Amino acid sequence: MPAIDGVTLRTVRAGYKNWDRADLTYAELAEGTSVAGVFTQSACASSEVELAREYVRQGTARALVVNAGNSNAFTGYRGREAVERIIGKVADHLDCAHEQVFVSSTGVIGVPLPIDIADAGLEAAFSAEPCGWENAAQAISTTDTFPKGAHASAMVGDMRVELCGIIKGSGMIAPDMATMLGYVFTDAAVDPAFLQALLERANAKTFSCITVDGDTSTSDTVLAFATGRAGNATLASFDDPGADAFAAALNDVCRQLAQLVVRDGEGASKFIEVCVSGASSDGSAHRIALSVANSPLVKTAIAGEDANWGRVVMAVGKAGEPADRDRLSIGFGGHWAAKDGQPIPDFDEAPLAEHLKGEEISVEVDLGIGDGKATVWTCDLTHGYIAINADYRS
Amino acid sequence: MPAIDGVTLRTVRAGYKNWDRADLTYAELAEGTSVAGVFTQSACASSEVELAREYVRQGTARALVVNAGNSNAFTGYRGREAVERIIGKVADHLDCAHEQVFVSSTGVIGVPLPIDIADAGLEAAFSAEPCGWENAAQAISTTDTFPKGAHASAMVGDMRVELCGIIKGSGMIAPDMATMLGYVFTDAAVDPAFLQALLERANAKTFSCITVDGDTSTSDTVLAFATGRAGNATLASFDDPGADAFAAALNDVCRQLAQLVVRDGEGASKFIEVCVSGASSDGSAHRIALSVANSPLVKTAIAGEDANWGRVVMAVGKAGEPADRDRLSIGFGGHWAAKDGQPIPDFDEAPLAEHLKGEEISVEVDLGIGDGKATVWTCDLTHGYIAINADYRS
Repeated sequence: MPAIDGVTLRTVRAGYKNWDRADLTYAELAEGTSVAGVFTQSACASSEVELAREYVRQGTARALVVNAGNSNAFTGYRGREAVERIIGKVADHLDCAHEQVFVSSTGVIGVPLPIDIADAGLEAAFSAEPCGWENAAQAISTTDTFPKGAHASAMVGDMRVELCGIIKGSGMIAPDMATMLGYVFTDAAVDPAFLQALLERANAKTFSCITVDGDTSTSDTVLAFATGRAGNATLASFDDPGADAFAAALNDVCRQLAQLVVRDGEGASKFIEVCVSGASSDGSAHRIALSVANSPLVKTAIAGEDANWGRVVMAVGKAGEPADRDRLSIGFGGHWAAKDGQPIPDFDEAPLAEHLKGEEISVEVDLGIGDGKATVWTCDLTHGYIAINADYRS
Repeated sequence: MPAIDGVTLRTVRAGYKNWDRADLTYAELAEGTSVAGVFTQSACASSEVELAREYVRQGTARALVVNAGNSNAFTGYRGREAVERIIGKVADHLDCAHEQVFVSSTGVIGVPLPIDIADAGLEAAFSAEPCGWENAAQAISTTDTFPKGAHASAMVGDMRVELCGIIKGSGMIAPDMATMLGYVFTDAAVDPAFLQALLERANAKTFSCITVDGDTSTSDTVLAFATGRAGNATLASFDDPGADAFAAALNDVCRQLAQLVVRDGEGASKFIEVCVSGASSDGSAHRIALSVANSPLVKTAIAGEDANWGRVVMAVGKAGEPADRDRLSIGFGGHWAAKDGQPIPDFDEAPLAEHLKGEEISVEVDLGIGDGKATVWTCDLTHGYIAINADYRS
């Protein structure tokens, strides 16, 4: 992954937990950087999310701080004070507005972020040596089993622009850790409102299409930063040359990042794509796909390499969406097991069984009642998930 | 559990699976028996459910047939034919209307019920020796680990009436088996429309308040039969003497049966009661309670005996219901862990830890924003659930 002009990354060990690794990431952004963000829908969002959601509206950013090891969620006024202290310190250092500083925290819920540790960590970060993407991806992680990054590029007019993203998450929530945090950086010049629109579009087809356990975090955050250093004519609408290419590249980075989270899902042994077609609308298809992807019985069947299409029927039936049992078809890996509401007579299970033995599984659902379609990604449900989340005391 | 006058139970081994146990249950009901029913909301319901839902409207019943080992769900016209054949045979035998015969089937999805096996089984059942509740509860079960029955009585005027119920289910779906099936029999005389109203009321507070894995079956059915043999003045509204007592007894039997299903939930090691108060409405409280009860992270935390209230906060936050983070309180076993959006300072975890070691766990959530309340019951999520559902090939 190439460096992005206008983005300087630094990481230090602040010591939010008793571990020997960097856990505070500080990204300095060039003046004029546009910002956009999408956040958790949780009614119990953290102070970090509340402030970032408010700040993103003014459209520019100068810095991002990510704390790993403490989510600072559900910590009342003391948690809020800690975030405001970090923001104030960075704003003083860069001589910028508070609203241009974005903070995320990930880790245990219910413990206020220790202000002294954050303070000393930031002080050290200001003078640390710049680092690369892999170090930053490591430093924002908690129970992730590998660092996650993605890259794409696009031609905007005759300028080549680069997009790099990093993300953390291993399930919507890792043990006692909350949060999927993702950040996309680009050197393209993009108007903040248009960047926000593009990020929301990309989010709907990527981050909103993954699930590990259906448990939505209190702190989920995806931010996009555009430094403008590539020198392209600023993108402000789809009428601008190169806007489509940039949107496609942004979508590409977001999809890669989203899929990496699922591949690292807690206890996952298989990556699962659920493709729904023939639904009454795209929205309905999306809700049916999520019903299948979140069904413990479908996920355990796939873990057991069992082409148990009856459980997929069950998950379609319970979704609360329009469906006609006698037009419903279910398949795995491109092979139909049941068509139009009945098992296929004398059907050969061998190719399905073979597909289920792999690590990349696809489930196809055709409703046969309309043109709506959607794809979501998930992972299987294994003993590993139980081991991580139950054989564990906080 | 006492016999119910007007109900004759018989079970036989029809042989729906290669097992050495009774798997066909035949209950003959006295003329004049009222019937009421509630059924799965699944869009992919079985033919059994479709027909019973239609038949229950005319209000009387003469027989119930339950097949175990094959759910006959998603089997198209051949499945429908099998059910109609059973109904016709029983109607001929009893010289009653087809609409007075109710059939349920539970077991593997997608295999049409074999008509010849059903035929021969029924023939044997017609002349079999009558049996008791325990035999019937055994014969309707699939992967249940124990037979499930409940009993209550009530005074209606100066007549004592009895209510007996049996149920099967071990999760909304057991491996390759679908269905929670429950049947309540009473000797009380109850008008069908009033019986339906009472059953719907009881269902809302009992069967609709349990969840094992959030996976709703294609065949869930609860039927109530009232033979009238107790000789009480027919109950037709809450104005009738004894109606309240009968409603309370029906509710009692339904709650006992519902809780037995959760206690036998797949892999369950703990019984969990989730009590939500202070919500914006009772409906909102119910949805929040189900969000907590269905959260894999809450259920695994309890399996791990971890008073992880942060995960309860997460589950409240994701429910999509009104909540104010700074008024939310969470407790276990009657001990608050967090109040008004913050952990309790210097709080003593010992009593919570002790409570979590038990087999009967309660989770308390107070939203602090209204008067809405609800209680739901569930079980924990353990390696046992994965073993039953993944370490298994159909």
